[in-house]
Amino acid sequence: MDIGTLVGLGMCWAIFVASILIGGASPLIYINIPSVVMVLGSSFFALFVANPLSRILGIFKIFMQTVRLPAYEMEKTIRIMVEFSERARREGLLALEDNLQELDDEFMRRGIQLVVDGTDPEIIKSILYNEVNQIEARHSSNIKVFDTWGTLFPAFGMLGTLVGLIAMLANLQDQSTLGAGMALALITTLYGSMGANMFCIPVAAKLNDRTKTEMLFKEVVIEGVLSIQSGDNPRILLEKLIAFLPPAQRDGVRQEGKD
Amino acid sequence: MDIGTLVGLGMCWAIFVASILIGGASPLIYINIPSVVMVLGSSFFALFVANPLSRILGIFKIFMQTVRLPAYEMEKTIRIMVEFSERARREGLLALEDNLQELDDEFMRRGIQLVVDGTDPEIIKSILYNEVNQIEARHSSNIKVFDTWGTLFPAFGMLGTLVGLIAMLANLQDQSTLGAGMALALITTLYGSMGANMFCIPVAAKLNDRTKTEMLFKEVVIEGVLSIQSGDNPRILLEKLIAFLPPAQRDGVRQEGKD
Amino acid sequence: MDIGTLVGLGMCWAIFVASILIGGASPLIYINIPSVVMVLGSSFFALFVANPLSRILGIFKIFMQTVRLPAYEMEKTIRIMVEFSERARREGLLALEDNLQELDDEFMRRGIQLVVDGTDPEIIKSILYNEVNQIEARHSSNIKVFDTWGTLFPAFGMLGTLVGLIAMLANLQDQSTLGAGMALALITTLYGSMGANMFCIPVAAKLNDRTKTEMLFKEVVIEGVLSIQSGDNPRILLEKLIAFLPPAQRDGVRQEGKD
Amino acid sequence: MDIGTLVGLGMCWAIFVASILIGGASPLIYINIPSVVMVLGSSFFALFVANPLSRILGIFKIFMQTVRLPAYEMEKTIRIMVEFSERARREGLLALEDNLQELDDEFMRRGIQLVVDGTDPEIIKSILYNEVNQIEARHSSNIKVFDTWGTLFPAFGMLGTLVGLIAMLANLQDQSTLGAGMALALITTLYGSMGANMFCIPVAAKLNDRTKTEMLFKEVVIEGVLSIQSGDNPRILLEKLIAFLPPAQRDGVRQEGKD
Amino acid sequence: MDIGTLVGLGMCWAIFVASILIGGASPLIYINIPSVVMVLGSSFFALFVANPLSRILGIFKIFMQTVRLPAYEMEKTIRIMVEFSERARREGLLALEDNLQELDDEFMRRGIQLVVDGTDPEIIKSILYNEVNQIEARHSSNIKVFDTWGTLFPAFGMLGTLVGLIAMLANLQDQSTLGAGMALALITTLYGSMGANMFCIPVAAKLNDRTKTEMLFKEVVIEGVLSIQSGDNPRILLEKLIAFLPPAQRDGVRQEGKD
Repeated sequence: MDIGTLVGLGMCWAIFVASILIGGASPLIYINIPSVVMVLGSSFFALFVANPLSRILGIFKIFMQTVRLPAYEMEKTIRIMVEFSERARREGLLALEDNLQELDDEFMRRGIQLVVDGTDPEIIKSILYNEVNQIEARHSSNIKVFDTWGTLFPAFGMLGTLVGLIAMLANLQDQSTLGAGMALALITTLYGSMGANMFCIPVAAKLNDRTKTEMLFKEVVIEGVLSIQSGDNPRILLEKLIAFLPPAQRDGVRQEGKD
Repeated sequence: MDIGTLVGLGMCWAIFVASILIGGASPLIYINIPSVVMVLGSSFFALFVANPLSRILGIFKIFMQTVRLPAYEMEKTIRIMVEFSERARREGLLALEDNLQELDDEFMRRGIQLVVDGTDPEIIKSILYNEVNQIEARHSSNIKVFDTWGTLFPAFGMLGTLVGLIAMLANLQDQSTLGAGMALALITTLYGSMGANMFCIPVAAKLNDRTKTEMLFKEVVIEGVLSIQSGDNPRILLEKLIAFLPPAQRDGVRQEGKD
Repeated sequence: MDIGTLVGLGMCWAIFVASILIGGASPLIYINIPSVVMVLGSSFFALFVANPLSRILGIFKIFMQTVRLPAYEMEKTIRIMVEFSERARREGLLALEDNLQELDDEFMRRGIQLVVDGTDPEIIKSILYNEVNQIEARHSSNIKVFDTWGTLFPAFGMLGTLVGLIAMLANLQDQSTLGAGMALALITTLYGSMGANMFCIPVAAKLNDRTKTEMLFKEVVIEGVLSIQSGDNPRILLEKLIAFLPPAQRDGVRQEGKD
Repeated sequence: MDIGTLVGLGMCWAIFVASILIGGASPLIYINIPSVVMVLGSSFFALFVANPLSRILGIFKIFMQTVRLPAYEMEKTIRIMVEFSERARREGLLALEDNLQELDDEFMRRGIQLVVDGTDPEIIKSILYNEVNQIEARHSSNIKVFDTWGTLFPAFGMLGTLVGLIAMLANLQDQSTLGAGMALALITTLYGSMGANMFCIPVAAKLNDRTKTEMLFKEVVIEGVLSIQSGDNPRILLEKLIAFLPPAQRDGVRQEGKD
Repeated sequence: MDIGTLVGLGMCWAIFVASILIGGASPLIYINIPSVVMVLGSSFFALFVANPLSRILGIFKIFMQTVRLPAYEMEKTIRIMVEFSERARREGLLALEDNLQELDDEFMRRGIQLVVDGTDPEIIKSILYNEVNQIEARHSSNIKVFDTWGTLFPAFGMLGTLVGLIAMLANLQDQSTLGAGMALALITTLYGSMGANMFCIPVAAKLNDRTKTEMLFKEVVIEGVLSIQSGDNPRILLEKLIAFLPPAQRDGVRQEGKD
């Protein structure tokens, strides 16, 4: 579980609500169901226009990616790569087939399988990089759902405020309800801004960050697979792959590599 | 028919109108024909300045693309490619001419025709990629119409509001009509924002998404055509092409490939 | 003459003015010469700072490009290219010199001349592409004048409004002129927004579109010239060049090619 | 001296001030020293945070670049290049050393010196292009100072207005000073917007334009130097280099080349 | 210590506070603890959602980078490179091992070590460039924290103002507290804008500038290491490396190179 996402969302909303309560005004004045329906509903269906149906229906699954921690273990993966490289030099590329089941990561397994099958290095490179590019394209389409929502939310908030203002201004005779009418009109802007800044924008940023981490992991795997196939020295392979890590994590990998 | 576009547009507007009706104000105060004419008309003719005439006259046809579902069947196309590849290896590239009529997709037919004619691979690649780039350029010009409209709409909405405000302020003596004057002034901002957020922006996003899907499909076709010409192993061709698909759709293609 | 630009500008302003007249307020309240001078004059001289003198002095000539229709005849050009290609294969590259005078387009003539002179293909390619890049760079500098003006216009509009507001607020005693003062202050914002949205932004968009069309035309010429020099089959040349056209225009070119 | 920059800045401010004077309000209400100090001072020190000290201390020197006209004489440079090319073909590359002192431009001299020294063409290319890239990087860092200031100016203007508004609202009892207080609050927004639109933004645009011109000039020099070294025909060199010029300037260079 | 950052931050805030004190209003009206908690707290926890936990926990360390001066000594590094190059040509690449301890910079040491080990130039290039790219990617993720905060700050400021406005408008009966309520509501906008413009935006700009300087330094090292390995003439190496320096710093390096 990604504690950052959960604690972040929880605390962000908690502090916000607490500051309203401390302000002394009745919290009820901030709740208006028709306004929620309008801002949330209209902007959500505008997303339907902007996206293919399947992507919208999977929106909850996309969000859940920010709550689950990704399973990429860069350091372990680099060690496995070095081991495979050593074995391939000792016993030949075909010997790697025995260890394929050990691999948790589907992408790495597929890469090594292509090597074991004796596929041409250029073709392996093109297949794996193409796959990575397609994953990135699909991820960025998913992220764009939240990006678009993050811009539609305040837009529909403002639309609601305009509707409220016009109604209020067209009916100015009753000055006693002026303040309440305007407060109601502003509530949709508040909802729109909350939806964007307290949900969509940070979620899209986290999804973006996750995609970058995944792409980095997959690049390490491709570099490793191609290096194993070309019979690189395992020491060189290690140097190549730890260049992807931040310096602080390198010594651990180097150490275990020597054991 | 793309249900997402229709349901999305319908529900987005329905919820918006319903929330107005629930608000209790007379819906008539939101309707002002001169304001519609100004915001819609002026911004539309500004599009005339910004675009060549032919593109503006085709604007309805461009919009209709978001309502019709595209006919790209990636999985079927990949299976056809694999079949063609097998046949080409058994009976030679010329034998593919017999199957050309079976192909629904004009682009794929053109590619295979070039292969059958014995055209040089580099030339085929350059012709097909050039065509894809030109298609993308034409699509992005079309999308830009809606993008530009989406920025002109709120701008003309604000222009209308300024016109209304100035008229109202220049004539402040009659305080009783103050509210109504201001309500009227705000209506153009409402129209402009509705035109942008409830039509242009989501439509442009869908058109963008469609273009990406089409480009992906055409890339699969080019990859397949070149692979067939170079006599790649059909198994390798299959691996190459399914790397374009999301993992969930791959097994189906693999299965049928074995039958 | 580009009817789109003229009709667009005319109708955009006509509808706008008509909607003001219909509004019932005296049109005179929207006219204030000092405000025009300030918004138009100050923003224009800020353009002087931002651009070299020669570009500013040529601003009217730049604008006129949006009114004149460009003379690129893609289809005719492709047919000429195919004819040249046939002749070059029959009678040798030198024979093309006789037809050079027939060519209206200076760029195409220059390219064929380089071929006739026996210049190295790499050098021809570098000269022609360099020329195209320089043209694009000069065009984009020109477009930027209108882009910059389109952002300075509303900025100076707002500056004028601030000046007016401060004068009005510093002199609040006379409440009877309050409305008129504020109306006057808002007029510069109106002018700034009109200058940007009803002139600069659409004009810059059209100039951009024109540049794209010209670049496409010049790319077709370069592709054709290099293909003629390398002695490509005229049928292949035709295929290469019509890939630049939208599908609907291709059959016409193909047909004539056969005649 | 770049007349455009001076006349532009002068007229932009003159028209602005004149329109204030014509407005009839006392010009003194627009002058408030503490507001100047706040907007100018705070935003300037925020620039200190954003940039290395040396760049900020050189800000006046950077600005002066927009006032001095650059000394690039493209046409003369091309003619010199062609002469050098002719001499190198007649008398050998070493003979160019005698003419090195004639060259005003340090960059061209350095390039020819490398040729005379018999440096490898690849190394010359990498040294000269690297130098150009570094110049561009340093220029764009300098331009960014004005870019950043152009966004900080209105931000600090708004900060000042918020400070003024809060003070005024917290002290509403004295309604007689309400207007004056608000006028004072708005003055910082006016200053911020003036600083951005009447100084920083146009200056940054001019610096940008200058950088582009310099890069173009240096590209011509590199192209010429490499062409001289490789012993290109002077006629080809001329064709290559005049492709960088706008068509109107070409005939003059061609003519003199023939004399 | 980077005096620019410290003086800049100090003076920016000092001038801002001083201008408030000079304004004459009680400074207490600008302090509201619940508003601070809301704007600072909510936006900070939104950063938790947007970033991995480790990056947020290191945010203070990231900020401290703007206060410490970087230790890159370009001129000294270039001189060392030239010395290494001379020694390598005299005594062979292996002789460089003796001098490795002299090198302060870990990255340069690693590069020379790879050379001494006899690693293939292509592999050295790929390892070092990959490391540089990863460093840049990590830096840009760090910078993005402040970038994101710089956009969330004003957004949460506006959210607080909306909350305050709605409370005030819903409770308009007591007109005496109207001004104070509105002043309080605006305070969150003030805090949000201060957080963005007086902290996050300038800090992110400085971090960006630092990254560019570091990348330039590392590029010089890579260029030098590869040049040493390929046995380039030390004079050529010097020319290559000083092309990275601004002209004013070159003569010093050239001079010492001759001693």
